[in-house]
Amino acid sequence: MYLCNMISKTKLKELAVYKQQKVCDEQSVFVVEGVKMCDEALAAKWPVRVVCATNWWLLQHTNLPSDAEVFEVDDAALERLSSLRTPNEVWMLLQRPTAQLPSNTGLVLAIDHLQDPGNLGTIIRTADWFGVRHIVCSEGTVSCFNPKVVQATMGGVFRTKVVYTSLPDYLHSCGKPVYGAMLDGEDIWGESQPLRMPVGGAVLVIGNESRGITPEVQQCVTHRVAIPNLGGTAESLNASVACAILLAEMLKVRSEN
Amino acid sequence: MYLCNMISKTKLKELAVYKQQKVCDEQSVFVVEGVKMCDEALAAKWPVRVVCATNWWLLQHTNLPSDAEVFEVDDAALERLSSLRTPNEVWMLLQRPTAQLPSNTGLVLAIDHLQDPGNLGTIIRTADWFGVRHIVCSEGTVSCFNPKVVQATMGGVFRTKVVYTSLPDYLHSCGKPVYGAMLDGEDIWGESQPLRMPVGGAVLVIGNESRGITPEVQQCVTHRVAIPNLGGTAESLNASVACAILLAEMLKVRSEN
Repeated sequence: MYLCNMISKTKLKELAVYKQQKVCDEQSVFVVEGVKMCDEALAAKWPVRVVCATNWWLLQHTNLPSDAEVFEVDDAALERLSSLRTPNEVWMLLQRPTAQLPSNTGLVLAIDHLQDPGNLGTIIRTADWFGVRHIVCSEGTVSCFNPKVVQATMGGVFRTKVVYTSLPDYLHSCGKPVYGAMLDGEDIWGESQPLRMPVGGAVLVIGNESRGITPEVQQCVTHRVAIPNLGGTAESLNASVACAILLAEMLKVRSEN
Repeated sequence: MYLCNMISKTKLKELAVYKQQKVCDEQSVFVVEGVKMCDEALAAKWPVRVVCATNWWLLQHTNLPSDAEVFEVDDAALERLSSLRTPNEVWMLLQRPTAQLPSNTGLVLAIDHLQDPGNLGTIIRTADWFGVRHIVCSEGTVSCFNPKVVQATMGGVFRTKVVYTSLPDYLHSCGKPVYGAMLDGEDIWGESQPLRMPVGGAVLVIGNESRGITPEVQQCVTHRVAIPNLGGTAESLNASVACAILLAEMLKVRSEN
């Protein structure tokens, strides 16, 4: 059983500053909330700094990491900490990992200036589903530790490795073929099977929601591909939807060969 | 050129009630905002009841439908009408269409108790991209005229036909094979190609974000299919992502045959 204290007013005030993304960025931490997401973080053995939870939650989690600060909170205190409309039993402050560029031979996802938190979260969730472990984001991409992104990943952020860097530099030096979706690209379902991935792996680039892949990154793309619209009339697909269709097609072709 | 009046205080007050979804539902209308979405509505020749726009926008749209009420508004008035954080030049009140169940032979999308506006909007956008014209929603599904849904469709709501009805009744009487994604379904990439669509068309059912397809609708599913995770560890895919992968696979198989 824990010895854990009811949170003090001073501590509560101290922790409430983590609502500000800037403070989280500076201290290399991020906030995770709610029963489901906190369970995912614990299951992934993610480094936990602080846990604030209701008595009910604490009674069910008697095996928290020993180096975490643990506080019991009531609903009012939880509401003070939370960015959610309906706070849900538990709030955690987690350590961000030290980021490293991928050196594996599988598929790597590269994200170029994506802005929408829901889109990035959904992309990480899809990557997690298909077992894609490495995601390299351009410096202008929304932070994967933004609370809305974390929520949309449904735990995927704890099971994938997301790193932020200069995308052209990474793509130039990774030594892999680089696939990018562009309007003038080759039909992904064409006879030449342009998404057939080589044994050494590949990088798939997903661009910005409205402007697509930046010119600098386009120069690194070695395989321009396009999702055919089969007679439809929309201007474009949502970025996370396009990513899912391309990922599915690349990985499926690989698993068939 | 238009003769259009600066909006009166009384009219502004009268139109501000359409911020309430309930009022829109009762009067069978919906609100569309912003330059891009309003242009899409006009291009689709959707019935327009009221236009409130800045002088700048009106000068560029001199060919509005003759039966629409048109008012010039300043930024303060636009802000009063708008549900957006940053109102964008134009606000329109549109007529909802009279809904009819599809009788065509192509692919029909059926939506079972989907809750998230972003998910439904993205699904309509994807259907629009692939030329799927008919979407049948269960009665518990979020309204396709919810402003967040409309926005996420990127104009798709004007080019597809979305109807709300009892889904089991529709599926029982449509005379088409019904495909549904379920955990115990057949691998969509398996040798038997379970997504191969018959010439007479088919229905693809997409379930609720967390509970999947309801038991009543499951009973109508004739082909249970599953998207394999290829070694990944996530619990599930986002509903709009699963829909996109299934749609792409069904339509692609059809276009190949």
